[in-house]
Amino acid sequence: MNSYQEMNTPLRTIMTPGPVEVDPRVLRAMSTPILGQFDPVFTGMMNETMEMLREVFQTKNKWAFPIDGTSRSGIEALLSSVIEPGDKVLIPIYGRFGHLLTEIAERNKAEIHTIHCEWGEVFDQEVIIEEMKRVNPKVLAVVHGETSTGCMQPLDQIGPACREADVLCVVDAVATIGGVPVKVDEWQLDAVIGGTQKCLSVPSGMAPITYNERIERILFSRKKVEKGIATADDVYAGEPIQSNYFDLSQLQDYWGPRRLNHHTEATTMLYGLREGVRIVLQEGLQARFDRHKLHEKALMEGIKAMGLELFNEVSWKLPVVTCIKIPDGIDGDAVRKMLLDQFGIEIASSFGPLHGKIWRIGTMGFSCRQENVLFVISAMEGVLVRHGAQLNTGKGLQAALDVYDSAE
Amino acid sequence: MNSYQEMNTPLRTIMTPGPVEVDPRVLRAMSTPILGQFDPVFTGMMNETMEMLREVFQTKNKWAFPIDGTSRSGIEALLSSVIEPGDKVLIPIYGRFGHLLTEIAERNKAEIHTIHCEWGEVFDQEVIIEEMKRVNPKVLAVVHGETSTGCMQPLDQIGPACREADVLCVVDAVATIGGVPVKVDEWQLDAVIGGTQKCLSVPSGMAPITYNERIERILFSRKKVEKGIATADDVYAGEPIQSNYFDLSQLQDYWGPRRLNHHTEATTMLYGLREGVRIVLQEGLQARFDRHKLHEKALMEGIKAMGLELFNEVSWKLPVVTCIKIPDGIDGDAVRKMLLDQFGIEIASSFGPLHGKIWRIGTMGFSCRQENVLFVISAMEGVLVRHGAQLNTGKGLQAALDVYDSAE
Repeated sequence: MNSYQEMNTPLRTIMTPGPVEVDPRVLRAMSTPILGQFDPVFTGMMNETMEMLREVFQTKNKWAFPIDGTSRSGIEALLSSVIEPGDKVLIPIYGRFGHLLTEIAERNKAEIHTIHCEWGEVFDQEVIIEEMKRVNPKVLAVVHGETSTGCMQPLDQIGPACREADVLCVVDAVATIGGVPVKVDEWQLDAVIGGTQKCLSVPSGMAPITYNERIERILFSRKKVEKGIATADDVYAGEPIQSNYFDLSQLQDYWGPRRLNHHTEATTMLYGLREGVRIVLQEGLQARFDRHKLHEKALMEGIKAMGLELFNEVSWKLPVVTCIKIPDGIDGDAVRKMLLDQFGIEIASSFGPLHGKIWRIGTMGFSCRQENVLFVISAMEGVLVRHGAQLNTGKGLQAALDVYDSAE
Repeated sequence: MNSYQEMNTPLRTIMTPGPVEVDPRVLRAMSTPILGQFDPVFTGMMNETMEMLREVFQTKNKWAFPIDGTSRSGIEALLSSVIEPGDKVLIPIYGRFGHLLTEIAERNKAEIHTIHCEWGEVFDQEVIIEEMKRVNPKVLAVVHGETSTGCMQPLDQIGPACREADVLCVVDAVATIGGVPVKVDEWQLDAVIGGTQKCLSVPSGMAPITYNERIERILFSRKKVEKGIATADDVYAGEPIQSNYFDLSQLQDYWGPRRLNHHTEATTMLYGLREGVRIVLQEGLQARFDRHKLHEKALMEGIKAMGLELFNEVSWKLPVVTCIKIPDGIDGDAVRKMLLDQFGIEIASSFGPLHGKIWRIGTMGFSCRQENVLFVISAMEGVLVRHGAQLNTGKGLQAALDVYDSAE
């Protein structure tokens, strides 16, 4: 009667800018039988996960915990908890995910100011700082690593300038956390959102965030304890946050010692996240960043040696995403389809003005390893030759192997 | 250097009203290596999951898919996508989760009307229908199964009355889906939210929902395609939905044939949900409902035979939650602690006016099986005797075994 079969999925080599291959240890952790949400062993794991997240974010912030949703849920939780109607928000846009910040801020009734640069460029930090001083926003929201263009916005001067001007600096580090340094305290960032399904090698479905006491003060003024569990002391003055699910003032009370019931924590995802950040710390942050740089270099050298051109070989390149210009006369989607169908390899196209113009290859987390880099280089060559491209055959793999040899 | 250990969790017998034990087949499915979000094999699984969800919801609705968040994310997605500022919403409240509906509706700027009855009671359907006619709301939002009180609100007359009055009937079936009949089409419910971590035996972290074309018409009028991926045709008139993450008009375009990128689907959670609903359909809906009734009966008979009193032995009892009055002089939390510490069994306390007055035992999904029911009965007896309660020792297990014998 029931014709649905057990899962039987192919194994893929996933070389997109996310989601990427999940570390097998994370998958194992996720097959662990669950605990109840208030089981002391489970709340202990929640606390441990917070501790480990602080290390990954390089912060001493009290608050570092996941939102139960995909990466953009973390962005929305922060922006909707901080922005009140009419608040000015400045958003520098250099790719698709800058637009997402405006989408979310707009729906929270912010007065939005944007500055733009070409997709493929980033801003001189001074340009952003000047605009910040001119607009004097409550919040400056900016993407750290734009996977849509393979570019990374430097932030080390922007954070301190915001602090000095008493502007809140909120950063989307979904693509960079765990693969590239994200120095929350050193750069004086007030709130940062990370992603699980990229450099942490955990499936999509949670969004680790961190924020400091500057953000917490706003939360406290807008706090509202849920009816049905509130006590007489729980009366606050400010306009409540427009989402219950994303209300960080309530989520704090669930992740904090009060342990006020909000949602039921996503047990299995938390197991995965805990294992994912544990593995990051076990490898060591610096060793992990170095590993990502090494495989990026091998990939770039291999791609260039076979005669393809890079789109983002710039000083502001996002190390974990390498973008390749699609050669004239080549159908980018047909190439991707053949890579998937015949090699089981997935790479990405792009969005908006770059759609059809570049391929994007991710080297993130568990996917970022030698055999994957070598396989994607050889497969690209094979597929492109099959599509009639003129390449320096045989050169790509040798160039990549040279990088690995010289690294030993 | 890194002192964090591999996960090493105790095995528990989880007899709360959720989260409950996850079916081992679901855990296995969740350890499967992931696919990319636009891999055709993965989008095929998304479609299959939609098909299976329709069967579980007993509906022909086009839309049935999960929200990537815990159960309340599904409630918020529906209410925030449907409610525009000033819309009248009627909410009958008979326990904690009715209050949650008001929390969410309030933050969407609804004009809220509530009616109340004692915790432990439900409404005569006529009372709700009369109030609905008097208030004439846009939306009637109601909880189907209140885990906080162990009561279930009949809906078979409310749905048709709403349809006739052109009122949208939105139902929180988080606790009932997969354990108790939820007849979306027959009862003429316009939108229904299910939960994963209760009778579906999937971890918390997704919220399957379904809705019909009456809801879809509202979504269409409020639609907004995200900047960065919108085309010139994508211009709509209505006030946009106040959340990007929960914007069902965008989620539809991701789950539908247009496959517009929104979030990155929570791959592993989807594997779990797919396996969970597959198992439900393999067992068969009626057989599953019968199983839940059988174990409920064994538990109730066992509890009564040992001399304890039930709080919710009423015709409107929620079959999957059995509430026990805490005997005079017994410390309810000390009993729960000893059950957990010495037997590895988790049962629940309650909220608000019932806190400290009742224990709640869930018989849901994979936790709802004979050995668990027998174990919790014998453990309750042992712990209560240890706490000085006067019980009919030895009678509880025999009464439960009698139920199982007579069922054979």
